[in-house]
Amino acid sequence: MTDKKQFEEGLQERQKDVERVLRSYLPEKKGWQKTIFEAMEYSLMAGGKRIRPILMKEAYILFGGENEKVIEPFMAAMEMVHTYSLVHDDLPAMDNDDYRRGRKTTHVVYGEDMGILAGDALLNYAFETASHGLVETNAPEAAARAFQIFSRKAGVYGMVGGQVVDVERTGQPLTKEILEFIYTLKTGALLESSLMVGAALAGAGESDLETMEQIGRCVGMAFQIQDDILDRTSTTQELGKPVHSDEKNEKTTYVSLYGIEKAHKAVEEYSDRALELLDHIQGENPFMRELIGYLVNRKK
Amino acid sequence: MTDKKQFEEGLQERQKDVERVLRSYLPEKKGWQKTIFEAMEYSLMAGGKRIRPILMKEAYILFGGENEKVIEPFMAAMEMVHTYSLVHDDLPAMDNDDYRRGRKTTHVVYGEDMGILAGDALLNYAFETASHGLVETNAPEAAARAFQIFSRKAGVYGMVGGQVVDVERTGQPLTKEILEFIYTLKTGALLESSLMVGAALAGAGESDLETMEQIGRCVGMAFQIQDDILDRTSTTQELGKPVHSDEKNEKTTYVSLYGIEKAHKAVEEYSDRALELLDHIQGENPFMRELIGYLVNRKK
Repeated sequence: MTDKKQFEEGLQERQKDVERVLRSYLPEKKGWQKTIFEAMEYSLMAGGKRIRPILMKEAYILFGGENEKVIEPFMAAMEMVHTYSLVHDDLPAMDNDDYRRGRKTTHVVYGEDMGILAGDALLNYAFETASHGLVETNAPEAAARAFQIFSRKAGVYGMVGGQVVDVERTGQPLTKEILEFIYTLKTGALLESSLMVGAALAGAGESDLETMEQIGRCVGMAFQIQDDILDRTSTTQELGKPVHSDEKNEKTTYVSLYGIEKAHKAVEEYSDRALELLDHIQGENPFMRELIGYLVNRKK
Repeated sequence: MTDKKQFEEGLQERQKDVERVLRSYLPEKKGWQKTIFEAMEYSLMAGGKRIRPILMKEAYILFGGENEKVIEPFMAAMEMVHTYSLVHDDLPAMDNDDYRRGRKTTHVVYGEDMGILAGDALLNYAFETASHGLVETNAPEAAARAFQIFSRKAGVYGMVGGQVVDVERTGQPLTKEILEFIYTLKTGALLESSLMVGAALAGAGESDLETMEQIGRCVGMAFQIQDDILDRTSTTQELGKPVHSDEKNEKTTYVSLYGIEKAHKAVEEYSDRALELLDHIQGENPFMRELIGYLVNRKK
């Protein structure tokens, strides 16, 4: 078996594990508010790559974490936050996208009001799910610190902050500085958070948390620039969502600013830097190393 | 000084205290994402009654709580959750309201996309703010329990669940059962949560938490039915928001189902029940008792 095949099997196994974890926390579809449970499941179980919870768990393992009752609710919570942001990003008043991951977007299926509420529900439910980890932990200080990072990186100093600047500046020429701000917050923050929360839950100290944050930042930049490249070079069928949407929305991207060639080079540099930083951490997690390479060379 | 005047002064003092707490947690209005900080402040500092954080603090005091660094972040978080729900409720795809508390609604001032993001930002920031309480506490188990209640009552088994059924059933005739479900979740859940979180943070046991939940439920029912009465009988000027909006939106309310007279009677019965339940708690908090009466007899 080749290394590549072994990695891919390992990745699929972990994706299945995340699906199991997500299913175990999904609300039962009964009660007067059943529609929202259906909309949550529809958006959450649409088959994403599950990169964030996988990174979180690998970081947890890297720092010696062993309590599934603590890491799993945070893994589920992370994917819920990621999903809520997609549901709201797709709304007519935002990016107005009808397709996501090859399926109709949540508001197209359930109506715009339910699209707003499904996002709200997922965000609330993310924190509700993470709270199980707070209650179950034997290390309340580590869990509280992890929770603090989790909430901060999702909000105005993290992902939402990036969305705001992205929405506000669409159709305007962007400087490199603002583009990096948007990428770091909108895409990077949840990747930073995944690595940091996993590490924090396993009891990592502040200096290691900072290193994990920097790794996440590099992975986020590489990941987003790769997204720009794929939006320009891939097909709708391959990607499962409309391509050339950046052009359509008049978005400045790394590709529109620097061209494809420089974009490819930047992806490589950021991923090299992430791997270098990973060397500064004492433990060893070969899968995480390969995963970072995969994220950067992915085709969708 | 009459009792009534004394109560009103006490209430104003507490409202000012909540404003101080909210200001102390508001993000500084600087950075590329400044617009969202402005929109958060615009909606949060629009001068609501601040009932929920006041109830939370009084419950905390009732159970002997004394740590401001723990209760204050939760108070701020509660008002942020309440405010986010109003911002999203007012959106064009939801109730489509242009005015709230006598001022233009957030999406009217900042645009619909920023209205969605301002709500998301407030909800995220609520949990981020509450996390300070988790980090500062000397009683991590009590804080984790409080946090669990806080997140659950805001979500699909609480407020959001009520919003969903409310939105979905608008324009349809409602049974008494569904109407009570909506009122209990949409309005009651955050009032229950306020009382329960305050109590839980002060270390109250599960049986007392249940009593506080029941009190909150009664207050919620009385509060919402009073809202229905005011929507029918008050003026836009007095109320600071459009009246007769229930009729406009073809909403079944307690008043449309039972008439004004029975509605008044129900308000009285629910508030009496809340006060009876309060007698089951060992401590004594005369202000909370008066506050419950006030909520029920309010004119706006």
